[in-house]
Amino acid sequence: MINKRKIIAVIGGGQPSPQEVKLAEEVGRELAKQGVILVCGGLSGVMESACKGAQSEGGVTIGILPGESRQAANPYVQIPVITGIGEARNILVVKSAQAVIAIGGSYGTLSEIGHALRSGIPVIGLNTWSLSRDGQQDNSIILAQNPTEAVDKALSLIIN
Amino acid sequence: MINKRKIIAVIGGGQPSPQEVKLAEEVGRELAKQGVILVCGGLSGVMESACKGAQSEGGVTIGILPGESRQAANPYVQIPVITGIGEARNILVVKSAQAVIAIGGSYGTLSEIGHALRSGIPVIGLNTWSLSRDGQQDNSIILAQNPTEAVDKALSLIIN
Amino acid sequence: MINKRKIIAVIGGGQPSPQEVKLAEEVGRELAKQGVILVCGGLSGVMESACKGAQSEGGVTIGILPGESRQAANPYVQIPVITGIGEARNILVVKSAQAVIAIGGSYGTLSEIGHALRSGIPVIGLNTWSLSRDGQQDNSIILAQNPTEAVDKALSLIIN
Amino acid sequence: MINKRKIIAVIGGGQPSPQEVKLAEEVGRELAKQGVILVCGGLSGVMESACKGAQSEGGVTIGILPGESRQAANPYVQIPVITGIGEARNILVVKSAQAVIAIGGSYGTLSEIGHALRSGIPVIGLNTWSLSRDGQQDNSIILAQNPTEAVDKALSLIIN
Repeated sequence: MINKRKIIAVIGGGQPSPQEVKLAEEVGRELAKQGVILVCGGLSGVMESACKGAQSEGGVTIGILPGESRQAANPYVQIPVITGIGEARNILVVKSAQAVIAIGGSYGTLSEIGHALRSGIPVIGLNTWSLSRDGQQDNSIILAQNPTEAVDKALSLIIN
Repeated sequence: MINKRKIIAVIGGGQPSPQEVKLAEEVGRELAKQGVILVCGGLSGVMESACKGAQSEGGVTIGILPGESRQAANPYVQIPVITGIGEARNILVVKSAQAVIAIGGSYGTLSEIGHALRSGIPVIGLNTWSLSRDGQQDNSIILAQNPTEAVDKALSLIIN
Repeated sequence: MINKRKIIAVIGGGQPSPQEVKLAEEVGRELAKQGVILVCGGLSGVMESACKGAQSEGGVTIGILPGESRQAANPYVQIPVITGIGEARNILVVKSAQAVIAIGGSYGTLSEIGHALRSGIPVIGLNTWSLSRDGQQDNSIILAQNPTEAVDKALSLIIN
Repeated sequence: MINKRKIIAVIGGGQPSPQEVKLAEEVGRELAKQGVILVCGGLSGVMESACKGAQSEGGVTIGILPGESRQAANPYVQIPVITGIGEARNILVVKSAQAVIAIGGSYGTLSEIGHALRSGIPVIGLNTWSLSRDGQQDNSIILAQNPTEAVDKALSLIIN
């Protein structure tokens, strides 16, 4: 019997700002330092920067890809998971994680935040969406000021 | 060669307020009157109320179900589509529609809004989520004041 | 409360023989005459021929499409269901049916037969795969001699 | 830039014979010795035995799970991928692999063989299904006499 590894997802857009690139890379580095496996959507942008950071610290990176080809994974993905199910792979990215760190992002990231919150998976936000309903702020996304705080909060909130 | 039917999705929560129940039923009725097929997630709450409304006006109702059983569909679903893919069926509900009407809803509905907007499918909102990013309001969800206006806007924005 | 409609799937390859084209068209016609909704993968070949047959007798046709576009549906699909989940849509085609009729077909059809049998959904075969394991014939695929017999057997075996 | 890891799938039933249990364990050991990552459906039976074998030789094991819980993974899965998409996860198991080794198995395994062959992914068979169509044997499943031969053939046929 072995222990299953801790897994945290990094989600965010394919076209991040320069600041988001830095945030993603530092989140990746921090996860690797803490011995956590990074799971992401496997493509470019925030996903690639986070994998690059993790890789630089010897971390393990998993990319859950929408298409049919492992070649589509960014160069820092060590373990490509090929789904062929398109955008539905977003759900697998968040469900495979015990906590999710969202950095910036557009509507794809929004869908992932929705799926994570629906499943009770903690979402830590860095410069990402904020939500309200019926004129009331929804505070389910836990804000972090910087990558280290994001990773610390994610680790402290890990589920099951 | 035949014409494909117009299809509009109604999305929303499983535990709607009494007001949302009324809104959903009226949206369903209005869609049926306009000859539009209603697609939804096939379960209870907003989904059931919308189907009930459509059914009362002789409309066609499709329920795209998360589980393995057609018995799980609400009693007003005429055509159950069984997926067995769980929450990932949310994506099919919005992608099968040419426009989406969101009524209230929780995080599942939020994920559907994200998937729809990412695919360029118009989303009309009645008492639903509102979104902002970096302190800026995102106005992609088109607001409607009542069911008739929601259906009119949806029809006028139908894609492809 | 309304009755859910009977739904039977027709599965088979995209490049059928001329004989398989005829079989598919006649199966489609027969299903429509019996008031059964036809569900299929929505593309060309056996799927299109079956829809064409059903359409000629006023039947309802549903195409569960692998891609993102309703335009990809064959011209005889009235209700396109857009999945964007690629080949995984094969599972939805068979699970949405109460019985499956397989006509010819290649490895995609084989995967659908596997999924149907695993779910306990009856499979009727016309010129399709035959299976054996450990040198023993597996007789789970019910053979039919012609389209009318296939539809009759399918109807008699409908589940739930 | 790093090299992506070699990944081979082991598929087979949840209720294997004692002989199949041995075969699976030895296939797992052999894959680990060759430095290959083992991917499987993550549950019991052939999947668990293969993971146990790989684990005993220090190999990496990925389990792509149908449900919502990482606790459902067998105790030898190090990296659980949670899908929540039910049986559709079968497709991900084979697509994430560069070759597939099938041991025994029932209709779920048959569906995986269909999906693999459709995607051009080599399938090596140990005591598994054999296929024919129109009275003609289909020889796409490459037979192996023992676990070592199965792994050698799989490695020699690895795609992309």
